[in-house]
Amino acid sequence: VISAYDLLVAEGYLLPRTGARPVVADIAPRQRRAARQRATPPGEGDRRLASFWRNTQGLRETPRPGLPERCFRLGVPDYRHFPHALWRRLSARALRDFARKPFSYPPSEGIPELREAIAQHVAFARAVACVASDVIVTSGAVQAFDLLTRLLVTPGKTRVAVEEPGYPPLRAALLAAGAELVPVPVDDEGLRVDRLPEDVRVVCVTPSHQSPTGVALSLRRRMDLLEFARRHNAVILEDDYDGEFRFGARPLDALQTLDREQRVFYVGTFSKSLFPAIRKGFVVTPPWAREALATVKACTDSHCDAIGQSVLAAFIRDGHLARHVRHMRGIYAERRSALLEGIRSELGEWLEPIPSEAGMHLAARIRDPQLAPAVLKTVLAQCPGAQSTQDYAMKRLAHPAITFGYGVIDPPGIQSALGLVRLALLREYSSSTTSASRPSRVS
Amino acid sequence: VISAYDLLVAEGYLLPRTGARPVVADIAPRQRRAARQRATPPGEGDRRLASFWRNTQGLRETPRPGLPERCFRLGVPDYRHFPHALWRRLSARALRDFARKPFSYPPSEGIPELREAIAQHVAFARAVACVASDVIVTSGAVQAFDLLTRLLVTPGKTRVAVEEPGYPPLRAALLAAGAELVPVPVDDEGLRVDRLPEDVRVVCVTPSHQSPTGVALSLRRRMDLLEFARRHNAVILEDDYDGEFRFGARPLDALQTLDREQRVFYVGTFSKSLFPAIRKGFVVTPPWAREALATVKACTDSHCDAIGQSVLAAFIRDGHLARHVRHMRGIYAERRSALLEGIRSELGEWLEPIPSEAGMHLAARIRDPQLAPAVLKTVLAQCPGAQSTQDYAMKRLAHPAITFGYGVIDPPGIQSALGLVRLALLREYSSSTTSASRPSRVS
Repeated sequence: VISAYDLLVAEGYLLPRTGARPVVADIAPRQRRAARQRATPPGEGDRRLASFWRNTQGLRETPRPGLPERCFRLGVPDYRHFPHALWRRLSARALRDFARKPFSYPPSEGIPELREAIAQHVAFARAVACVASDVIVTSGAVQAFDLLTRLLVTPGKTRVAVEEPGYPPLRAALLAAGAELVPVPVDDEGLRVDRLPEDVRVVCVTPSHQSPTGVALSLRRRMDLLEFARRHNAVILEDDYDGEFRFGARPLDALQTLDREQRVFYVGTFSKSLFPAIRKGFVVTPPWAREALATVKACTDSHCDAIGQSVLAAFIRDGHLARHVRHMRGIYAERRSALLEGIRSELGEWLEPIPSEAGMHLAARIRDPQLAPAVLKTVLAQCPGAQSTQDYAMKRLAHPAITFGYGVIDPPGIQSALGLVRLALLREYSSSTTSASRPSRVS
Repeated sequence: VISAYDLLVAEGYLLPRTGARPVVADIAPRQRRAARQRATPPGEGDRRLASFWRNTQGLRETPRPGLPERCFRLGVPDYRHFPHALWRRLSARALRDFARKPFSYPPSEGIPELREAIAQHVAFARAVACVASDVIVTSGAVQAFDLLTRLLVTPGKTRVAVEEPGYPPLRAALLAAGAELVPVPVDDEGLRVDRLPEDVRVVCVTPSHQSPTGVALSLRRRMDLLEFARRHNAVILEDDYDGEFRFGARPLDALQTLDREQRVFYVGTFSKSLFPAIRKGFVVTPPWAREALATVKACTDSHCDAIGQSVLAAFIRDGHLARHVRHMRGIYAERRSALLEGIRSELGEWLEPIPSEAGMHLAARIRDPQLAPAVLKTVLAQCPGAQSTQDYAMKRLAHPAITFGYGVIDPPGIQSALGLVRLALLREYSSSTTSASRPSRVS
């Protein structure tokens, strides 16, 4: 009898009353499940949604399925060279350790081993001045942007300078946080610091390898930018998204390295040096913002998955990251040479590479503005994944360039694609040199 | 010579000019790194931070190191019974598959296999009406709260009803999004739906096992709540945080099951059924909010780590989750019985368990309001991890209860702790029964 009563109470048919007999609940007949599939009137859903949705409509990148075999997409690392077997061993070890350890909640800032490993790695590889407690582990650079913008942007008030052209997901995070965006142009020395309006409170910049033009922020501009931040009490978000792949004799240090006033938030990611699916990035934060940033992380998703953090910590600590980066730098350097050489020899009449010393892609300007639309169209047709820098801009660019990623394409692939571009351009613009045999070779 | 020039350019000492000789850059002397460690004047940091920080100060839970061996903490699963070896095998398999697959970016909504597995699991285990495309994978329930509040809350405008007492991390997410919180009391039938102000646009509720009192929302209240949402065009955030562990003969279905109007967002998590470090949860969203929610996820952290998703998908699909939940339900049922029996037999004079049919904890009222502070103090001293429901409340509660989690403590541990409480209470309140021998047995 008691368990029958308990069931009726649990199901809501009886209402328990302390110290009295339960009463029968007054309930409506149960509704059929199928009925709920009735569609919401169009537009009603949107009216229920908050400003976030209005701010970010259309900002989401279209979902991208697998890449074509030979692809010039930007920012995609070649993970065929990744030491997968080693990673599996480290994963198994981390899972075994995890099963043995007493339960605990991972800290929001990241597990201590990983913060320590990251601090040592960026100090060594990028001369970033930091200790483990300055490092906050994030779910990739995108979450780092999200946490920082929520920390630094007061909705409807804060003006934020972004590079024009620049990285769209960063703009999405800023708009979602209610920032007012100020696009600032980029030239061969990087961000035009002299064009920064005085009232911006946050400046976002990719100093080692501008996204997407590939230029480096010159030392003079770096000093000017830090001086600007000092004078106008602004902070700087330094996105060092692929600064580890540098091909100059001696790489430029991070902007953070020069900062004496704790104004730079340094954002790094393992999406390029390892692979995006690992979903790990980090912020090196000035000490004054440490506690606040950890709080934002805690409120946002508590902490990153602990096991992935352990595996990555071991991978860095045992030297595998440095080794893998060194290995990939050699591979990317070859591809970069093939690309530069190919652009010069095959497409030198039409394209001029923009100077760049780092990363996994480079951009090239179209020499003749008159021919720009046609050249762009031909390149995009023959080089899947290549893009116009216009795709990265908020406004109309006077002279858009073309980006060529070399993360997943090998030198023969580069050579053959550029050769096809040359043939197609010749066919179109130098009809005198076109022979009947060429088109058949192209197809 | 060329490479020397290139280096000087890369370092910023020379400025390249297209078609002309480079000029020497006008740079300030490089600053010493040590100097940047100068502290920011107190207060200056906070002035740079945005409203997020002001909204959430003090909301962050204090970091918790490992738990004591015998602990009554709420919401911590016993992962000593987790099939770790099996999980390692599935992880190794997922990593091998990953290494073989061509590169692709995981979709923001979650990988298809996991969305499909979750949809089937919640349809079967919780009678949630959904298909795979209604499921958005999140980094735990905390991120589900964060995404939903950013979607549904217009800062400074939207009023949101929360249970009083209720789950603090949910309040943190709401405050961070700029919501105005309306605490609504809870009684033995769950949320007092009749006390909802008409202007709330979002109602947050834990229907299967109220956090922290443990009561179930009665069927009558469920119908009233859905009717309230219909009448006032509100949406409902259903947090089914540990609804899988049910001990009644036939569990109550989810609130979402009864919803015919696409007003319920159902939030689930694997932190309780598996373990928190896995950092996976999900939202079952009404179709009208699907695209918007995926966009918020994309802007926030792109996607969850793909390998963890694969492992979890295989774990669910192959029936291991259902098996593990069934196994743990038996273990938790024993502990729950020991706890109920112990409270009745040892502490029946002072405590009365609050009816509850689900979850990994239960709460008990203090019978005599006069003695409440002293009884609370004694219980907390002898039962590490036990808490006052006051810790979960926004305002002062008239009659706080005490929560006892049984996720990590076994029946002997429960019995001995409750026995110690009894002895301590007897010593304090029934001096007539105290004998000289008892204190020594206690210590």
